[in-house]
Formats: sequence, C-alpha cells, structure tokens
Amino acid sequence: MIRGNDPILLTPGPLTTSLRTKQAMLSDWGSWDAAFNAVTASIRRDVVEIINGGDDYTCVPLQGSGTFSVEAAIGTLVPRDGKVLVPNNGAYCSRIVRICKYLGRAVVDLAVPEDQPATGAIVDAALSADPSITHVAQVHCETGAGMLNDLSGVSRACSAHGRGLIVDAMSSFAALPIDVRATPFDALVAASGKCLEGVPGMGFVIVKKSLLENRAGNAHSLAMDLHDQYVYMEKTTQWRYTPPTHVVAALRVAIDQFLEEGGQTKRLARYSANCATLIDGMARLGFRPFLKPATQAPIIVTFHAPPDPAYDFKTFYEMTRDRGYILYPGKLTQVETFRVGCIGAIDANEMRNVVSAVEQTLEAMGIRQVAPRAAARKAA
Amino acid sequence: MIRGNDPILLTPGPLTTSLRTKQAMLSDWGSWDAAFNAVTASIRRDVVEIINGGDDYTCVPLQGSGTFSVEAAIGTLVPRDGKVLVPNNGAYCSRIVRICKYLGRAVVDLAVPEDQPATGAIVDAALSADPSITHVAQVHCETGAGMLNDLSGVSRACSAHGRGLIVDAMSSFAALPIDVRATPFDALVAASGKCLEGVPGMGFVIVKKSLLENRAGNAHSLAMDLHDQYVYMEKTTQWRYTPPTHVVAALRVAIDQFLEEGGQTKRLARYSANCATLIDGMARLGFRPFLKPATQAPIIVTFHAPPDPAYDFKTFYEMTRDRGYILYPGKLTQVETFRVGCIGAIDANEMRNVVSAVEQTLEAMGIRQVAPRAAARKAA
Repeated sequence: MIRGNDPILLTPGPLTTSLRTKQAMLSDWGSWDAAFNAVTASIRRDVVEIINGGDDYTCVPLQGSGTFSVEAAIGTLVPRDGKVLVPNNGAYCSRIVRICKYLGRAVVDLAVPEDQPATGAIVDAALSADPSITHVAQVHCETGAGMLNDLSGVSRACSAHGRGLIVDAMSSFAALPIDVRATPFDALVAASGKCLEGVPGMGFVIVKKSLLENRAGNAHSLAMDLHDQYVYMEKTTQWRYTPPTHVVAALRVAIDQFLEEGGQTKRLARYSANCATLIDGMARLGFRPFLKPATQAPIIVTFHAPPDPAYDFKTFYEMTRDRGYILYPGKLTQVETFRVGCIGAIDANEMRNVVSAVEQTLEAMGIRQVAPRAAARKAA
Repeated sequence: MIRGNDPILLTPGPLTTSLRTKQAMLSDWGSWDAAFNAVTASIRRDVVEIINGGDDYTCVPLQGSGTFSVEAAIGTLVPRDGKVLVPNNGAYCSRIVRICKYLGRAVVDLAVPEDQPATGAIVDAALSADPSITHVAQVHCETGAGMLNDLSGVSRACSAHGRGLIVDAMSSFAALPIDVRATPFDALVAASGKCLEGVPGMGFVIVKKSLLENRAGNAHSLAMDLHDQYVYMEKTTQWRYTPPTHVVAALRVAIDQFLEEGGQTKRLARYSANCATLIDGMARLGFRPFLKPATQAPIIVTFHAPPDPAYDFKTFYEMTRDRGYILYPGKLTQVETFRVGCIGAIDANEMRNVVSAVEQTLEAMGIRQVAPRAAARKAA
C-alpha cells in the first residue's frame, strides 16, 4: 500500500474511481449555464446508447442515490391501481417490495431462494396465476449475494403476458450486456457510482418515452416525479432542482473513459478477469463462493466466512483495511459470509493484492480453518 | 479573468467553492467504513451547534438537492391529516405549496406581495382565522427576489398559537443568525451547497428529536423518510442508502473553513460587505435593486433590467460570462429583472470585478438607459 493513498474499495459502490474522474470535480459549474447543460445532455444520450435505446427511449437523471431513482421509476410509471410482482432473492428485491408498500402500490413478494436465480419460468408462472399484475420489477444483479438473475427470460415472460418490466440494473448496467431491442423493458434504473465508475450522488432512469409521457400526475412525490423532471429538462435543458454539479461532471469524464476502454464488452472482460482472479486466489486460501459459477455475476462475490473460532468479521475487515483493501459485510440471513467487489477502476493486479492481504490477515488472526465445513459446503 | 479558470458563480447555488473544498473530493471513501461514518457524525454535530440545538435537536442528512430535504421534512413531520400554512412571497414558497399538494397535505397558500416580507402579524392573523392549521412552512430568505422574511416574528406567532414551524433556511443557514433558543422551530432545512460553501448533492434537516421520534410510518416515501433515515443512522452510524461520499467529504472541509473563518457572524459580515459593494457599484452604473434595503437579505440581489431596447438577458448573461462572471436570471412574474448572488468563497474584490464586467458589457451592447423608468422606480 502506498502510504497516504486511499484504501481500494472492494464494495458494490462507492467504488475506487480513477484520478481523472475525481479531478473532474475540481471545477465549479453553474447549473443554469449552457456549458453544464451540454454535459447533462451528452450523458443522457450516451447512457441511452449503451442499451441501444434509439429514439424510443430517453434518460431521466435524478438527484440522490440509486434507490431514489428506483422509487421514482415505480412511483412515476406504475399506475396507482397497478400491481407489481417482485421475484425476491435478496436485499435489493426486498427494498423494492418496501418501496411499493410505502407508495401504496399492490405488490406480490415472490420468494426465490437466495442462491437461485429468478427465471422466465418463475415469472411466467406468477403472471399466469395473477392477471391483475401490471408490472414486474426485476433486480438484474442482486448484490445481496452477487446473483445474476435471468433478465432475458424475465423480459420474454413479461412480453408474452403483455406486462410492464422495470429493471433495477444498478450494479450491472454498463458491465453486463443489456440490449433493449433483444430484451424489451419499460424502464431501467442505474446510478453514477457503479459500473460507469463515476462517483455516487445521482441515479438515472432509461425509460420508453411513450410510456413516460402518459404518466403526468401519477407520482407520489414532487422531487421524484420523473415525468415532471423529464418535461422540464426537455423544455429548458436544465435539471428541475439543483443538480449535484460535481458528480455530473465526474460522470461525464467517467463515461469518456468507459468509451475509450471499448464500452460494455471491454468493461465486462476486465471485471470477469477480476472476478476469476479473485475466486481463484481465494480458493487457494480455502475460501468458497456462496453461489454456483453459473449464477455468479462478475460484480461482487459472496464468500463463506471461515468457521474458525478465531474469525470475526470486524477484525478481519479492519486488518485487511490496514493492508489497503476495504471488503464488504455479507447480507445473507442464514449463512455467515462476507463480500468482495470486482468493480471499479481496478484490474486483476488489485485482486491478486487483496488475496495477499487476506492471506496475511488470516495468519495474523490465527485462522486455520478457512474452508466451510461439510454442512455449509452442501448448502453451497 | 485568469485564462482557463472557471467563471465565478454569482448565483444562489451552486456557488464558487474554495479549491481546498474541491480537493477534498480527490479521495474515494467507503460508505461502510468507520472513517467515513465519523465524517458524517461530525457534520451532524457541527450543524446542530450552528443553531444552538443542544441535545434536543438532531441533524438528519439526506441525499439529493435541498428540495428533497424540504419535501422529506414535510412528508415526515406533518401528519397526514395535518394542514400547512405557507406565507407565499416567491418561487420557493410556491414550491412548498406544490409539495403539499403532491403529498396530499392540506395547504393554505397565503399570498404576500413579492416585495413585502412575511411577518409575525400576517401569520398570527392567519393562524387565528384557521385553528385547523397544524404547521407553518416558512422560507427564511426567499431567493426568488432575495427577500428576508421575518423568521423571529413568524416563530413567535407559531409559539403563541401552539403550531409547528418548519423553516426552509436553504439560502440563509450559516450566514444569517438563527438561534433555536430564541426562535423556536420544529425543523429547519438547508443544504451542502449554500452558505456553508460545500458542493451541491445533499440536504439536511435539523429537527427536534422528540417530534421526529413520533413520526414512524408517516412519510409518503421510503427514500425520503427522515424517521427511518434517523433511526438507521443512530443505530449503525451509516446512511441508509449510498451517500454522495465526495459531497460529504467536501462539506466536512467546507465546515472546517467556516469555523476557521469565525462562524456565522464572520460569514455574515463578509456576505454583507459583498452585498453592499455590489449594490453601490451597480448603483453607479444606474442599476436599482428591486427590494427596499430593510428587506434585502445579503444573499442575492434582484436588479431591475435596463429598459433600453438594446438589452436582452441572454446576451447580457453571455457577455458577462465571457468576462468571468455568471449571473442569474430573474424569477419574478411581473417585472423584468436579473439576479446577482453575494455568497460563496468570494469577497468584495469579486463584487467590484463583476461591476466592472457589467459596465463593459453595457458598453459593448450599446445600452444607455440603465435606470428603471419612473413607473418601475415607483413599484420599487
């Protein structure tokens, strides 16, 4: 670790960003000024292009964290008498259920095991059983465990039944392939501080214009009314309320680097190499991932915690942090785990380095039993 | 203007911030990490101290622009069957009325002329006339015109009638004196990118703990539920959803500079000198402020636009911008005006410089008639 440098963030966001991205925040921008509004417009265009949205889709940016944009999408797009199906295999799915309850939208909370993906078949069966469901809200990569859900299958099921689809692609957008021509959806939600490798502070919703334009007066909140934000932005080129100007400027420069790197396919290749390097290196130390390889997204990996009595997460976290790497706690209810992110402005070198930091930490803590015992292995 | 430097922002926010504040954004922070949570905690403490809130008040920060925090305060604190009085003398008052309508809270929109302050007498009469009003929502400095409303008088009226008071102190907090011991309120809303001279991206609500603790389940929105944000933050020291980490880090450093400068009284002295220098300099060019001196807050000044046919705001704005200063459009409905902010990491030198830039712009545009004609003067 270079003394005085920041530790590397191996979390699902905020991420470690490039110095160039952070340096974009060394300017102040007027939110009314044409130069700033041109930045906003270019981000909106580039983001729609990533999913091949053409002229049918628009991007509505929103202040706040990604969750604000998820709530805004549901509140603006789902009619007040609509009904939302949430295939639920993790914490971020549960959050959408909670949002629906706050907003008074009827919701079907469809339990899916935390180690199983949501699939087209599951959604198809649920939609067949309940014709009153108007929308499916699907988390693409459920970072609670790091699960890759079957977005293509879910989208096909929604199309077959003529129901709407709102995708929470917070941690997958710009890394995993999503083409709206092949995988239709009503709206997709993501944020600045994830795989585009900007800094946190704004989300955005990529939404079918014809649907959004029909949703005047539907939202539960002024600040989160995407229709109002859209109409105002189209008319004036400005955000309705003070934008996080420095966050927006950093996102512009982050997208520049995304395009220079070669876009989504190259970013996926880098993250996949990060993920494989991490899993291989951790396997040599005895660690086993919670998920099977087929459902493991190359975004964040959940590992079983060592069953050794010398292990506790807090000490493990702090000692690895002192070696330059910030890990993330587990978010599963039944099994003790921790998580390591593979995303951000980092490459496979950092993944080798974190494995080395973990190895030293195990030794310093006197942890000998790293591999999960038989029962846990069986569950995995 | 130093070539390549950013123009100075003379707007009600975003503001020109110090280089030191912006440099605080050159680090990435983990939102789960103790070091970051200590930053959040220290901001919360310092902000409560500015209004002498002691142990009775807490600060709940919230992602998004200041408007998000205003909506969150109303949605969380006003019961669903409550009724809000808004003494309305400008655009930011009207925004609160609109929020109440979105949230389904009954609202009394009490018209006050744009060039007259809301006073204790006005509020007292309205509260006497309608005992069903539960809360007053008062904008302290209405930047639509730059008006200083009589917060002390309004607070006294609320106390006398036993009604709640929610203060939108977005553009006054940390510059104008507000002491909750002398001017009681339920909650006060402000944001990072105003007179604390941070960057935009988060707001905060300083709220009486005993009131907030009674408001579980009242909010209309998960993301904007201040009670839930508070309970989670008290329990975990963390923000509920991804915080704008760089914005938070910049606010910490901005508050450090606020304290080093000497706090609110010194900041007010600097802004007052800025405002006086601006008004004097503009007066020499023939410009007249829209407001009388007694109601002019030293935050932003509304000037009558020159009645000369050679004037148009867009050209005036662009030519002044090319000379290094970003002005702000007027927001009044009846009179043509423009605005010049006095706040940010700037001193009276910059106010002399903007007057010089305006003088050159007038000459370049061929504007001879600067002073308002008799009718407009009379209105002022």
